[in-house]
Amino acid sequence: LTSADTPSADTPSADTPSDEGLLSPGWAGSPAEAATGDAAFLRAMLDAEAALARAAAAVGLAPAGVAEAVTRAAREVRLTPRALALRARGGGNPVIPLVAELTRAVAARDADAAEHVHRGATSQDILDTAAMLVALRTRETVLADLDRAARAVAALAGTHRATVMAARTLTQHAVPTTFGLKAAGWHTLLRTARTRLAALPLPAQLGGAAGTLAAFATEGAADPGLRLLGAYAREVGLDEPVVPWHALRAPVAELGCALALAVGALGKIAADVLVMSRTEIGEVAEGAGGESSAMPHKSNPVRATLIAAAARQAPALASVLLGSLAAEDERPAGAWHAEWQPLRELLRLAGGAARDAAELAEGLRVNADRMRLNLAATGGLIVSERLAIALTPLLGRSRARRLLEQAAHDAAAKGVPLDDALLAAEPSLADRMPDLAGPAGLVDPAGYLGSAEALIDRALGQEPS
Amino acid sequence: LTSADTPSADTPSADTPSDEGLLSPGWAGSPAEAATGDAAFLRAMLDAEAALARAAAAVGLAPAGVAEAVTRAAREVRLTPRALALRARGGGNPVIPLVAELTRAVAARDADAAEHVHRGATSQDILDTAAMLVALRTRETVLADLDRAARAVAALAGTHRATVMAARTLTQHAVPTTFGLKAAGWHTLLRTARTRLAALPLPAQLGGAAGTLAAFATEGAADPGLRLLGAYAREVGLDEPVVPWHALRAPVAELGCALALAVGALGKIAADVLVMSRTEIGEVAEGAGGESSAMPHKSNPVRATLIAAAARQAPALASVLLGSLAAEDERPAGAWHAEWQPLRELLRLAGGAARDAAELAEGLRVNADRMRLNLAATGGLIVSERLAIALTPLLGRSRARRLLEQAAHDAAAKGVPLDDALLAAEPSLADRMPDLAGPAGLVDPAGYLGSAEALIDRALGQEPS
Amino acid sequence: LTSADTPSADTPSADTPSDEGLLSPGWAGSPAEAATGDAAFLRAMLDAEAALARAAAAVGLAPAGVAEAVTRAAREVRLTPRALALRARGGGNPVIPLVAELTRAVAARDADAAEHVHRGATSQDILDTAAMLVALRTRETVLADLDRAARAVAALAGTHRATVMAARTLTQHAVPTTFGLKAAGWHTLLRTARTRLAALPLPAQLGGAAGTLAAFATEGAADPGLRLLGAYAREVGLDEPVVPWHALRAPVAELGCALALAVGALGKIAADVLVMSRTEIGEVAEGAGGESSAMPHKSNPVRATLIAAAARQAPALASVLLGSLAAEDERPAGAWHAEWQPLRELLRLAGGAARDAAELAEGLRVNADRMRLNLAATGGLIVSERLAIALTPLLGRSRARRLLEQAAHDAAAKGVPLDDALLAAEPSLADRMPDLAGPAGLVDPAGYLGSAEALIDRALGQEPS
Amino acid sequence: LTSADTPSADTPSADTPSDEGLLSPGWAGSPAEAATGDAAFLRAMLDAEAALARAAAAVGLAPAGVAEAVTRAAREVRLTPRALALRARGGGNPVIPLVAELTRAVAARDADAAEHVHRGATSQDILDTAAMLVALRTRETVLADLDRAARAVAALAGTHRATVMAARTLTQHAVPTTFGLKAAGWHTLLRTARTRLAALPLPAQLGGAAGTLAAFATEGAADPGLRLLGAYAREVGLDEPVVPWHALRAPVAELGCALALAVGALGKIAADVLVMSRTEIGEVAEGAGGESSAMPHKSNPVRATLIAAAARQAPALASVLLGSLAAEDERPAGAWHAEWQPLRELLRLAGGAARDAAELAEGLRVNADRMRLNLAATGGLIVSERLAIALTPLLGRSRARRLLEQAAHDAAAKGVPLDDALLAAEPSLADRMPDLAGPAGLVDPAGYLGSAEALIDRALGQEPS
Repeated sequence: LTSADTPSADTPSADTPSDEGLLSPGWAGSPAEAATGDAAFLRAMLDAEAALARAAAAVGLAPAGVAEAVTRAAREVRLTPRALALRARGGGNPVIPLVAELTRAVAARDADAAEHVHRGATSQDILDTAAMLVALRTRETVLADLDRAARAVAALAGTHRATVMAARTLTQHAVPTTFGLKAAGWHTLLRTARTRLAALPLPAQLGGAAGTLAAFATEGAADPGLRLLGAYAREVGLDEPVVPWHALRAPVAELGCALALAVGALGKIAADVLVMSRTEIGEVAEGAGGESSAMPHKSNPVRATLIAAAARQAPALASVLLGSLAAEDERPAGAWHAEWQPLRELLRLAGGAARDAAELAEGLRVNADRMRLNLAATGGLIVSERLAIALTPLLGRSRARRLLEQAAHDAAAKGVPLDDALLAAEPSLADRMPDLAGPAGLVDPAGYLGSAEALIDRALGQEPS
Repeated sequence: LTSADTPSADTPSADTPSDEGLLSPGWAGSPAEAATGDAAFLRAMLDAEAALARAAAAVGLAPAGVAEAVTRAAREVRLTPRALALRARGGGNPVIPLVAELTRAVAARDADAAEHVHRGATSQDILDTAAMLVALRTRETVLADLDRAARAVAALAGTHRATVMAARTLTQHAVPTTFGLKAAGWHTLLRTARTRLAALPLPAQLGGAAGTLAAFATEGAADPGLRLLGAYAREVGLDEPVVPWHALRAPVAELGCALALAVGALGKIAADVLVMSRTEIGEVAEGAGGESSAMPHKSNPVRATLIAAAARQAPALASVLLGSLAAEDERPAGAWHAEWQPLRELLRLAGGAARDAAELAEGLRVNADRMRLNLAATGGLIVSERLAIALTPLLGRSRARRLLEQAAHDAAAKGVPLDDALLAAEPSLADRMPDLAGPAGLVDPAGYLGSAEALIDRALGQEPS
Repeated sequence: LTSADTPSADTPSADTPSDEGLLSPGWAGSPAEAATGDAAFLRAMLDAEAALARAAAAVGLAPAGVAEAVTRAAREVRLTPRALALRARGGGNPVIPLVAELTRAVAARDADAAEHVHRGATSQDILDTAAMLVALRTRETVLADLDRAARAVAALAGTHRATVMAARTLTQHAVPTTFGLKAAGWHTLLRTARTRLAALPLPAQLGGAAGTLAAFATEGAADPGLRLLGAYAREVGLDEPVVPWHALRAPVAELGCALALAVGALGKIAADVLVMSRTEIGEVAEGAGGESSAMPHKSNPVRATLIAAAARQAPALASVLLGSLAAEDERPAGAWHAEWQPLRELLRLAGGAARDAAELAEGLRVNADRMRLNLAATGGLIVSERLAIALTPLLGRSRARRLLEQAAHDAAAKGVPLDDALLAAEPSLADRMPDLAGPAGLVDPAGYLGSAEALIDRALGQEPS
Repeated sequence: LTSADTPSADTPSADTPSDEGLLSPGWAGSPAEAATGDAAFLRAMLDAEAALARAAAAVGLAPAGVAEAVTRAAREVRLTPRALALRARGGGNPVIPLVAELTRAVAARDADAAEHVHRGATSQDILDTAAMLVALRTRETVLADLDRAARAVAALAGTHRATVMAARTLTQHAVPTTFGLKAAGWHTLLRTARTRLAALPLPAQLGGAAGTLAAFATEGAADPGLRLLGAYAREVGLDEPVVPWHALRAPVAELGCALALAVGALGKIAADVLVMSRTEIGEVAEGAGGESSAMPHKSNPVRATLIAAAARQAPALASVLLGSLAAEDERPAGAWHAEWQPLRELLRLAGGAARDAAELAEGLRVNADRMRLNLAATGGLIVSERLAIALTPLLGRSRARRLLEQAAHDAAAKGVPLDDALLAAEPSLADRMPDLAGPAGLVDPAGYLGSAEALIDRALGQEPS
C-alpha cells in the first residue's frame, strides 16, 4: 500500500482526480463496478460506433470495408476517459470528442472509411446505446448474484422450515412463525425482483439528429432507415425499439424502477437480519462479521448494513429517472443529462447489494436455540391469540379476551408463565382445557404455526405473479 | 355557492376539518378522486371484511349465515370517516375501530354471526386488501382516460403525418420532423404506460396476525389456510398472492412505479405542449385555454400545466413506496404506515393527469401554418445537415462543413436565405448542385423527413416491448 | 358513529368526496390539521384579499371605505371549498373563482368598493400569501409541540443522567452510555430543528401580473408600489419581501427543508424508541401503548411508529419543493402548482409528528432495571474497550488486544464473565490489575461513562450552532 | 489522447476501475471535483488523525512528540485510495485500513508514538470530520463561484435596467418587464443561497466508540473529554459541536439542503436562459454555445443545460440526507453509510453548477432588439392589463373588459394592432383616450413597468432575509 511511485495523497492533482470506490464499500470491487466504470462506458460507446458501421455496411449505406475498419479501430484505439471528460464540457457530452478521436484513428488506416464514422448519427444515439449496453452487461452480474442469493435463502427456508421463532409486528412479539417462512418470503421478493429485471426491454438507440433517421435516408434510393435500425440493434446486441426514444424515456425509467425494486427487495432481507442480529436478540449472525476500529469484541453485521445503505439511496435515484420522463422537445435540455450518473449509481448499488446479499445469505449463521429462548421471553404471551381462540367457545369472545388480559397482566407482574396465571385466574380451566399446558399443549409455540409449511412450499415453487 | 346552511369559512371547526380538493385542481372532480376518497377506502375495508366472512363460510370456517349477515351489515352500516380517523390514532390504523363498529352492526341482527367478524384476520389484511381494491377501481378510470388520450394522439398522428415542423434539441432548431411523428412518439409512451399498469398484479392480503394464517388453521381439522386465501381473493375480486405479503411490499412498490411511469408519460406530452404553446412559438393551443385573474387577453395552457405539476410530484411519491420495501419484521413500524397517503395521492395524480391529457389531446388546436413559419425562421439552417451530406461528395467532409459554417454565418449576418449565402460563397454550386433551391429543392424541409412516416406507422401499430 | 343522517359509506358521491384523515392517524385531529385544511386555506386567501384592500386604502390607492367593505365581506362571506375546487380547474387555481365570489359579496353592499377587490393583484399573490399565512399559523402549533417535546426529553435527560445503558452501534452493544445522554442528544436535535423553523422568513407575496407592481403604479402620480408592498405585508402579518418572489421560490424550499429537518429530528427519537421498545430489549415503553385487532397482549409503540412513518415521507415531499426552485419565466407552468399539496402535507406531518413526540416523551416509561440487565448480557464485553486501554500499559497494545479477543471468545464459549475468562487466560492479572473485578471494578459499566454528564449539561444549556 | 502507455479502453481491469468524470460534464475539471475526490477524502481523513494527535498532546493525553510524529506521517504517507476502498469492505468503512497504514507509517519512525494513533477515537469520528473538512474546502470554491455569478448577474441587472421585455407566465406573454428585473431576481436568489451556505455550521466530530468520549477520560485524572473536543475542533479547523453528533445528523442534512438550495437557485437562472435561448425567442445566447455532433449550425445552451441537469438531481440527493436523520442507536446500520456518496455528489453538483453559472452569466449575450420584437408579437396585447385599468374609469370595469376582449379578438383575426382594433370597436376613444397610441402612448410597453427600477435597486442592495 505504501509505495514510492504512487501519487502522494497530499497532492491531489486537479487534472487527474479520480474515484476508486473509497466512499462506496457497498460496491467497491464488485463486478457491477467494473461493468459500469468510465472505461466500461467508453468501451460501450466504441462498441456502439462499431455496430453502426457494420449495420451501415450491412444495409448498403457504407462500403463493406468500413465495417471492419471502424470495428478494428474501435477495438484498438487508446483513449483516456479523463481527456474525453474534460473535452465533453464543450458540447455537454463525451461523444463529440470520442467521435473525433475515433475518426482520427480510422483515418490513420483508411481515409475513406473515416468519412463514415458516426455518419448520420447523433451523440445521443451513441450514449443511450452505450448506457443500455452497460445496463445489459451489468444486469448479467446482478441477476447472477440475485440468483445466488435466492438459492441461499431457499436453502435456509428448507433447512429451517420447522425452526420456530417469534414473529414480530411493530417491534413486538406477535405470534410464532418459522425462520423458514421468513426466508421463504425473502425468496418470493427476490424472485419477483429478478423476473422484473430480466424481463426489461433494453433497446438500442438510433434516430439521427432528431429521431427521423433522415441522414440515413438520403444516402440511397429507398428509405433504408428502418432496415438500418434493425441491423444496428442486432449488431450491438440490444432490443430493436419501435421508434427512436430520444425523448421517450420509458426504457430508462423502467430500468431505474426495476433496479430500485431489486435493491429494496435486498433491503428487506437486510432489515430483518439487522433486527435479528441485535445483541439482545442474537438469532442470526453474518458469517464473517465486521471489525471495529475502537472495540475489539465487536462483530458487526456489515453486509446487512451496506445493503441497508443502498436501499436508502436507490429510491431517490430512481425518482430522478422517473422525473426525466417529462422531457420536452426531441432532446431535452437537462432531463437527459440528469439520467447518466443516477443510472450508473443505481446499477452499482444493485450489483453491490446483490453481491453482499449472496454472501450474507450463504454465510448466515442461524441460532435456533436463541430463537427458542426469545419465544419464551414473554412467558407464553406469544400464543395469546391461540388461547383466545380456544377460550372463546368456553367463555364467549369478550370474556375470553378479558381473562387473557388479566392473566397476561398477572404473568408479567409476578413473572410466572401465562398458563399458570390463567389457571390461577380461572381454576376451572384445569378441567375444561386439559391441553393448555405441557410439552405439546396450547402454550407450545410450535403447535401454532398455521399454514407456515404449506406457504414455504408455495414460495419455493413460486412463479412470480 | 353562498348559502345559509353551509359552514362559514371563517370558523374552521377543529373537529371536522376536511379536504375537498381546493389545492388540487389537477384531480378535483375526477373519477380517480371519487374512487380514492375516505369514503371509498371505508367502502373497500367493509368489502374486505364481507369477503372474508363469505370466504370463511365457503371453506367451512364459519356457518353459512355469517356470510350473509356480515355482507349485509357491511353494505348497510353507516360509518363516518372522521370518527374512525380520530379513533385510528389509538392503534395506528382505522381498521380497529371499524371492526368494532361492524361487529356491533352485525350483532344488532345476529349475535352469533358477530363472533365471526374479522375472525383470524389482522388489521393489515383488511387495509392492504382495501388499498388494492381502491387501486383496482381507480385503475379502471386511469386506463380509460389513458386510452382516450392514446386514441386522440393517434388521431393527431394520423392527421398530421405530413405536417412538417422543426424538431428541437437542447431548445434549438435541429432538423425537420413532423407533428405526426411527435404525436406518434407520445402514443408509444402512453401504450407502454398503459400496458404496464394494466399488467400489474393486485393481490388480496390475508395472513392473520403475522402471515402464518394460524388463527384460521386451528378452527378445523385439516389446514384450511390456503383454501381460505384462495376463496378470499376470489370473493374480493383480487389476485391470489403466493404468500401473505405483509412485509413483502413488491405489489405496492410496483404499483407506485407504474403510476409514476404513467404520470411521467403524460408529463412528456405536457412538456411538449407547453413549449409549442409559447407565445413566440404558437404551434398548438389547448382547446379551452385557462383564464387569468389579472390579464384579460391570456389563454393559458392550463391542462398541460396541471399535468406538468403532477409529473413533478409523482416520482417523489413513488420513491416513498420504493423505500418501504426495506421493511423489518413481519410488520414494520412505520414503513407500512408511510405507504397509505403517498399511494392514494399517486392514484389521484395519475387519474387527474390522464383526464387532463385526454381532454387536452382531444381538443388540441394545431397550427400548421405557424409550424411552417417557424421552420423558416432560421433561413434554411434547419436543413444544414442535409446540405452537409449533399455537399460532401462534391467537396469532401471537412470542406463541406467549413463552407456551410461560413454560409450560415453570412446568412445570419446579412439576413439572407442559406441557399443564397451558399451560392454567394461558392458560385460553382449553381451548376454542381442544381437542386439546391426552389420549391422541392434541398432546402425544402419537407424533403428531409427520413423515415418519419414509416415510424408513425410502426408507432401506431405498436405492441409495447 | 352510526347515524341515520350521515351519508352512507356505500354511496360515495362523486360531487362531494372529502378526506377527513382516515389514512393519516399521524395528524388526524391535530392542531396542524385544522390549521391546514381547505377551510383554513380559504380563510387565509380571504385574509390576503382583505389585507390588500386595507393596504391599498392606507397608501391612497383606494378610498378608505374599501378597506372596511372588503374586510367585512371577507369575514362574512360563506364559501364552500368544494365549489371553488371544482371551478379552480378552469384557470388552474382557486383564486379566480374566489375573487368572483368575494367581489359579488362586496358588491351586495357597496358596488364601488367591489371595483377594488383584488385590483392590481394576480392569483399567485393571493395564493402564495395564503400559503405563508397557513405556514405561519401552523408553525405556531408545531413550535409549541416541539417545545413540549424538548421540555419532556430534557426532563428525561435530567432524571436519567446516571441511568446506565448499552450504547449500540451497527445494532451491537458497543460501550456503556446513559439514557440521560441519549435524551440530551434528542434535545440538541429538537433545539436545532426548532431554531431553524422559527427563524425562517415567511414573506407576503405581492407583485401583480408579473412582479413589476405595474397595475398599482398607474393609479397615482408617484410610484406607490413599494409602499403598498410594505403596507400589505404589515396588514397581513408576514415579512416584507425584498422583491416579489413569484418565480424565486427560496421561501417555500427553505420551509420544506426546515419542516423535513423537524420531522427527521423527531424521527431520530422514534427510531431509538422503536429499538428500545422491542420485546427482547424492553428498556422503554410508550405511556399508552397501541392495541391490536388480532392479539390481546400487544402494546405497540404506536406514536413512535407514526412518527417513523412521517419521517419516511417528509424528505420526498421536501425534494418536490426543492425541485420547484428551477422555475422558468415570471410564473412557471407546473413548478408552482406542484408545491401546494406537498407543502400542506409537510406542515401536517410536522405538526402531527411533533404532537406525537410530545405525548411520547411526556409519557415514556423508562425501565432502568432492564437497561442494567441488557448491559450485562455480554458478560462484560461492553467494557472491553476500557479493558484494552487498561491492559495496554501492562502488555502493549497488540498483546492486550489479542488477550482480550481470546478472553472474549472463551467467555462466550463457556458462558462465564469476561473478567473470569481474562484471569483464566492471564492469571498474573490478579496481581497486576487488582481493580479488574468487583462492584466498582474495571468491569463495572457505570465506571466507564467518560464525559457523559458534562455533555448532558452542555446539551441542555445549548444554544444551537 | 492516444498513447502507448495509457491503459487500453477495451481491457477495463476489474481491479482498478476508476471514474474520472466521463458522465459528469457538469463538474468534470471543476475545483469542486478536485476538492471531493477520493484523494481529497483520504487527505482529509489523514488531517483528522493528525489533528487528533495534536489535540491529545495539547491537552496532555499524549506526549508532545506524538503530535509531530503523527502529523508528519499523515503528511508523508503514501496511500492509494483503491487499496483502502477494497479493504473497507471488511468493516464497512475506509478508516479501519487507513488507521492500520498510518500506524505502520508512524511506527517506522517512532514506535511509542504509534501507540497513540487514533487512540480513543472511532471510525466515524474520522470519517465525519473528513466529510466536514471536504465540505469546508469545497464550500470555498462554491461560494467563490456563486459570488462570481452574483456579480455578473448584478452587472446584467444594472446594464439592462431599462431593457424592456415580455414577462411570461404559464408560457404566455403577460405584461412588460425588464431584463434588469429578471436578473435582479436571480441576484436575490443567489444571495440567499450564498448566505445560507456560508452560515452553515460545519462541526468536527469526536465522541469515541459511542459518543461518551470515555476512552479519553480514563487516560488522566480529571475528565479531559471536553477539553480535547475543543482542541480537536481548533486543530482541524472546524466548528466545535455541542455534543458528538454520530447519530444526530442535522449538520449533514442541513448541508444537503443548503447545497440543494444553491443548485436550485442556479437552476432558476438556467431555466430562464433555456427559455430565452429558444430559436423562436432568441433573447439571450450563451457566450460560447455548445457544438453538436450532427448539426453544423447548432449553438446549444450547454451551460444552462448542465445546470438544469444538476437541478434535477440535487433534490433527490438531499432527500437521502434528510432521510438519514431518522438514525437509530448511537451509530445506525445503514443511514450513516448512505450519506457519503450523496453528500459528495451534492458538493460536486453545486460546485459544477456554480462554475457553469458564473461562466454563463459573465458571457451571456443579450439581444435587446429581439426582446423588443417579441414584445410586439401580440400586437399590443401585452399591455391589455394597462388598457383595462385606463378604460375602467371611462366605461366601468366589466364593459372595459368586454371591449378589450373584443378588440383582442379582432386584432388577432385581422392582424392589426390592438389600439387600432380598439378604436375601430369604440371610435369615441379617439377623443376620450388621446394618449392611447403613439410612441409614448398607453400601448408602449416601456411605459408600463411599474416599480421595476425600484425593485432592481432593492434587489441589488439586498441583505437576504
